Amino acid sequence: MRYALILAGGSGTRLWPMSRADRPKQLIPFLEGKSLLRMAHDRLEGLIEADRRLVCAGEALREAALREVPGLAASNFLGEPAGRDTLPALAFSAALIARRDPGASIGVVTADQIIEPADRFRAVVRRGFEVVERMPDALVTFGIAPNRPATGFGYLHLGDDLAPGARRVVEFREKPDLRTAEGYLAAGPARYLWNGGMFVWRASTFLDCVRRYEPETHAGVLSIAEAWDSPRAASVTAETYPRLRRISVDFAVMEPASRDPLVKVAAVPMDLSWTDIGSWPAYADTLPRDGSGNALAAAETLILDGNRNLVVSEDPSHLVAVLGCDDLVVVHTPGATLVCRRDRAEDVKKLQAMAAERFGGRHA
Amino acid sequence: MRYALILAGGSGTRLWPMSRADRPKQLIPFLEGKSLLRMAHDRLEGLIEADRRLVCAGEALREAALREVPGLAASNFLGEPAGRDTLPALAFSAALIARRDPGASIGVVTADQIIEPADRFRAVVRRGFEVVERMPDALVTFGIAPNRPATGFGYLHLGDDLAPGARRVVEFREKPDLRTAEGYLAAGPARYLWNGGMFVWRASTFLDCVRRYEPETHAGVLSIAEAWDSPRAASVTAETYPRLRRISVDFAVMEPASRDPLVKVAAVPMDLSWTDIGSWPAYADTLPRDGSGNALAAAETLILDGNRNLVVSEDPSHLVAVLGCDDLVVVHTPGATLVCRRDRAEDVKKLQAMAAERFGGRHA
Repeated sequence: MRYALILAGGSGTRLWPMSRADRPKQLIPFLEGKSLLRMAHDRLEGLIEADRRLVCAGEALREAALREVPGLAASNFLGEPAGRDTLPALAFSAALIARRDPGASIGVVTADQIIEPADRFRAVVRRGFEVVERMPDALVTFGIAPNRPATGFGYLHLGDDLAPGARRVVEFREKPDLRTAEGYLAAGPARYLWNGGMFVWRASTFLDCVRRYEPETHAGVLSIAEAWDSPRAASVTAETYPRLRRISVDFAVMEPASRDPLVKVAAVPMDLSWTDIGSWPAYADTLPRDGSGNALAAAETLILDGNRNLVVSEDPSHLVAVLGCDDLVVVHTPGATLVCRRDRAEDVKKLQAMAAERFGGRHA
Repeated sequence: MRYALILAGGSGTRLWPMSRADRPKQLIPFLEGKSLLRMAHDRLEGLIEADRRLVCAGEALREAALREVPGLAASNFLGEPAGRDTLPALAFSAALIARRDPGASIGVVTADQIIEPADRFRAVVRRGFEVVERMPDALVTFGIAPNRPATGFGYLHLGDDLAPGARRVVEFREKPDLRTAEGYLAAGPARYLWNGGMFVWRASTFLDCVRRYEPETHAGVLSIAEAWDSPRAASVTAETYPRLRRISVDFAVMEPASRDPLVKVAAVPMDLSWTDIGSWPAYADTLPRDGSGNALAAAETLILDGNRNLVVSEDPSHLVAVLGCDDLVVVHTPGATLVCRRDRAEDVKKLQAMAAERFGGRHA
């Protein structure tokens, strides 16, 4: 059977003060009141039954996530007691799904981006499932055609065809320098794709890889899965999980797998609009603009002689007024207000860290 | 007996959104939580007994004013049903005080400014009382020595000595042009003073002037005073007061009085620090600055790479964070947030008018 796992870790500190420890980026009710997590869940409609869509995120977010996603059953929320990067999260999730359904194949999707159109997204993920159903030893990753020589992304170096619409990945390249990235771009999308951070695999194939490459993590998640429905579940998880080695699935599994004769790493190209709401200017780019270039995501605003500002408020009765200012980011929440020059928006994470240090959980 | 009347009309729309229809400038808890009204009331301590300190302001502000000034008795709040400028307010107040004490003399002070030092203020007002106690036909106004050729103020043109520390005013000059103002400044404070907007007079002398110069207003306030303690008080006031001619006491009484042989207009110089919190930059000037020139009147702030900003918040648990911005005014209230370039602060009144038009009483 096909399962979906929505990875919803991460914090999104550049979206402070809207993102906070108790409401990370994935749970912010951004667009028409829908969070990225909810959109990720809804996007799977028609591809995976709701009761086989799971979410893996911090255990502390359980209640907020269940409130935010009406179709999400409590048993389908897999709570990490601590963030340990993507390998522990995916191994833990695969072990729990395999326990329920040893023949499960899992589509791993993220809740970080707005991905459109949804029907093409589902068609692409469906192709990934078809690959692993035809080739049980395949680990499918999804690739995006580069449109610029980005140095902050990972790249998939493609080899031969493995199956219809799927190419072998012969090498992973993390964050190349600019000259290398320009070479990848020039070589074209038949040779290099951006690593999309989404996967499809059989739970058993993936767990076999974890057993070979990261045996301690494999043993740890198996012991958690064995205890899962017993009274010991919470204590075993709380004791075992935080000790799992902190490492990404790309480094721990995908790279070694691309050199492992026992498995195949396949890339499925993914031609989608892919918007990462990683910072306030990126969020502004998802909004319509008024005649002066202002992007307004607030119920009540007044702008007098202001241009190219972003104004965000989650309080529908709070008025945000801007007079004579250009290129600002103004974000109002009940607990905090941010006023930031647009070209300094990357440093919001510094401000969040200052808030955490100075005010603790109250403002961070 | 000596009475004090604190004139607390006006709205202070340039201090929006802290000033609002239901909480004008005089009632904003600015400095150490004290409003200008409360400071004006406290400043009279030791000069006038608390039960002879009265406040004249809009009737709608009665409850807020009584809450804000603990020593203010309900019967000493004289509520105007509508704002009609200073002549109606002062005539109405004088008629009510004269009804209670026909021999009353009244010191009229304002609640618009921070005036320091308080003991020198009291000494100056006391001198005003001494003048009208010695010369019952005197109307005393207070004058400030000009330190620049201001064109926005009224000037007192001084003549002979009338009494110790009091000079006859031979002419009032409203808002002269720059060349004239430069001439006044050059002539020195023995010839020209700024009109301070504070007065001392016997209630009977002032009301006689109103009767001669503005007989309809005189008749109106007398009819209100006659009905004051009767069941008809509210209805007579509500019917009569809004029809009184809208005019300032300077135009209606002080100017004609300076030419009237039946009375004397006397100026008492007032050497005081006199801070009008009329706009956000003026408020910033009353605050200490941090090492980057930021003026902070908020319990919780974070400033990263910000210079010469003013940050104001009246919510002690709300954090205001500024990143990479200079020369901004940021004001947070529970209902609204203002972000304004400092050099546009005069236009806050336009924004307030826009808020009133678009959102009505909710935000203005």
